[in-house]
Amino acid sequence: MIDQLINKIETLNAPVVVGLDPMLSYIPKHIQKTAFDQYGENLEGASEAIWQFNKAIIDATYDLIPAVKPQIAMYELFGMEGLKAFHKTCAYCKEKGLIVIGDIKRGDIGSTSGAYALGHLGKVKIGNQYHASFNEDFVTVNPYLGSDGVQPFIDICKEENKGIFVLVKTSNPSSGEFQDQLINGKPLYEMVGEQVAAWGEQCMGDTYSNVGAVVGATYPETGKILRKLMPKTYILVPGYGAQGGKAEDLVHYFNPDGLGAIVNSSRGIIAAYQQEQYARFGEENFAEASRQAVLDMISDIGRELRRESRRL
Amino acid sequence: MIDQLINKIETLNAPVVVGLDPMLSYIPKHIQKTAFDQYGENLEGASEAIWQFNKAIIDATYDLIPAVKPQIAMYELFGMEGLKAFHKTCAYCKEKGLIVIGDIKRGDIGSTSGAYALGHLGKVKIGNQYHASFNEDFVTVNPYLGSDGVQPFIDICKEENKGIFVLVKTSNPSSGEFQDQLINGKPLYEMVGEQVAAWGEQCMGDTYSNVGAVVGATYPETGKILRKLMPKTYILVPGYGAQGGKAEDLVHYFNPDGLGAIVNSSRGIIAAYQQEQYARFGEENFAEASRQAVLDMISDIGRELRRESRRL
Repeated sequence: MIDQLINKIETLNAPVVVGLDPMLSYIPKHIQKTAFDQYGENLEGASEAIWQFNKAIIDATYDLIPAVKPQIAMYELFGMEGLKAFHKTCAYCKEKGLIVIGDIKRGDIGSTSGAYALGHLGKVKIGNQYHASFNEDFVTVNPYLGSDGVQPFIDICKEENKGIFVLVKTSNPSSGEFQDQLINGKPLYEMVGEQVAAWGEQCMGDTYSNVGAVVGATYPETGKILRKLMPKTYILVPGYGAQGGKAEDLVHYFNPDGLGAIVNSSRGIIAAYQQEQYARFGEENFAEASRQAVLDMISDIGRELRRESRRL
Repeated sequence: MIDQLINKIETLNAPVVVGLDPMLSYIPKHIQKTAFDQYGENLEGASEAIWQFNKAIIDATYDLIPAVKPQIAMYELFGMEGLKAFHKTCAYCKEKGLIVIGDIKRGDIGSTSGAYALGHLGKVKIGNQYHASFNEDFVTVNPYLGSDGVQPFIDICKEENKGIFVLVKTSNPSSGEFQDQLINGKPLYEMVGEQVAAWGEQCMGDTYSNVGAVVGATYPETGKILRKLMPKTYILVPGYGAQGGKAEDLVHYFNPDGLGAIVNSSRGIIAAYQQEQYARFGEENFAEASRQAVLDMISDIGRELRRESRRL
C-alpha cells in the first residue's frame, strides 16, 4: 500500500493529505439547515451535515490529493450515526480513488489489536465468507503497549497489502511529557522510532515500509533526528498550518529523494473559508475555498522542497 | 462515579468486573445458528449472535457483579453492525443497574480527545439540545500523548460525574518494552502512575479519585509498587484467569481498607463453558457456566483478601 501511496504522491507532485476532521462549527449554516430540516437537530441530522460537508470537500479536492485522513473521534462523537458518516466518507473517498488513512490511534493487547486490525484494515471470517468492515488503507496505531500490540496490525498489513503509521512523536504541546523522557540518554520517541524502523523491515514496499510513523510538524528538530533514524519509514506529519507547523520546517521530514513524508492539514483545509485568507470565497463556496487552500499548501511545500533540493 | 462503583463493590462484596469481549468462537453454535438463520452469515448475523450471547450472560450474572467492561475492539471488528451490538450491550447493562466501563483505550491530541470524551462519557451539543452518544460510565484512556490528551477526559468526568482508567502498566507480554524503560532510575510506568495520581487530585470522589489506572494482574510486583505510589487511585486489573494472573497476587493491588482495585476477567467468565472446570454445564447452559465462574472468581479473590487482612 505504501507503494500505491508513493505513486500517487509522485504523480500529483503532492505530498499532502487532507484531514477530514469535521466539527459542527466548521460546517456552513446552509448545510446544517438542510440536514437538520431533513433529520432533526439531533445525532442523525448532525451526521448528515458532516457527510454532506465532507462530500463537497472531497468532490472539490480529490483530483489534487493522494489521500485523506478522517479522524474517527470526530465521528464517534456523534455515536452510531456519526460512525455511519465515517464509514460512508471512507467508502466515498475510495470510490474517488483516494487512499484512506483512518486516524484511529488504536492499540491494545495482542488479540484485541488483532480485532482492531481486522475490523479496520482486514476482513473478518464469518462462516465460510470474509467480510470487510471499515476497510481503510492505512490506520494510525498507538505503541504504548509494545510489540505484541502492534504486530497484529503488521500481520494484517502483510496479508492485505495495507499500511500503518505508528505514533512516535505527536504534535500536541504536552507530547514531550512522556515521549521526550530520556532512557539511557535517548528520548523515548527515538526508542519508539528505532522500533518502528525494525518493525518496518518485516513489511517493506519497494523502497519504503508499509509501517510508517507519525511525527508532528510542530517539533522540526525531532523530525530531523527521526528522519535519519528511520530512513525507510514514511512519516505522516500532522500539525502543519492551524497547529503551527511551517513549510520551511517540513523539509526535514523528507529524504533527499524528495519522498519519505506526507503532510496533513485538517482545519486549514476543511475550514479554509473561515480564514481571512479565503474569506473572499464566502460560506456558500466553502468547498472552493478548500480547493484553493489545498493548491496553496501543495505549492507552499513544493517551493520549500525545491529550495532544499537546490541547497543539497 | 467512582463512589457509585465502590458502593456497588461493597454491597455485593465483589471487586470484580466481567469483560464482555465476545469472539465468535466463544458463542455457542445454537446462538450462532439462530442469528445466522435470521440475518445471514454476515456482519449483521454475527453482531446479532454477539448481542444475544452478551444478553444471556448479563441476565445470568448482573445480580452478582458491580460492573461490566465491554472491549470495543471486539465489536469494531464487525463494523457498524458490531458497534450497534456494543451500543445495545452498554444500554442493556445500564438498564440492569450495571456500571459500564468502556474499554476503548482512546487518547489523542486535546480537541480530538475531547471528541472521544464527549462521545463516550458526555453529551454533544447540537442546536440547543444535548445528546448522549455511547454513554458509558468509565472509559480506559491511553496516556502516550501526555496531559493535554488526558485532560479533556478529566474535564468531562468532572462535568458529568464519570470516570476513566488510564493505562499505566498493561497485562500483555511485551508491555515492558516501553513501559518498563528507566527514566532517571524509575520505570516509565511509575512516571505515568505518578501523573495519574496527580491528575486524579482534580477529580476526587469521597476517598478515591474518578481518575483510575489500569495495571495488569500479570505483573504483581509492579502492582505492589504502583498501589503505594497512587494511594487514592482505583486500579482496574486485567489479566486475571485466562491471561495468567492469580488471586494470591491480586491482594497487592488492594489497599488495607479492602478497596482500591477491581479485577477483570473476560474469557474466563464469558467462555467458561468451554473450560474443563465448567464443561458439565454444556454448551446450551453457557450462561449458567458463566454465573458459576463469576461466583468462583468472587470467592477466590475474597478468600485471598480475607487471608491478607488477617496477615496485616
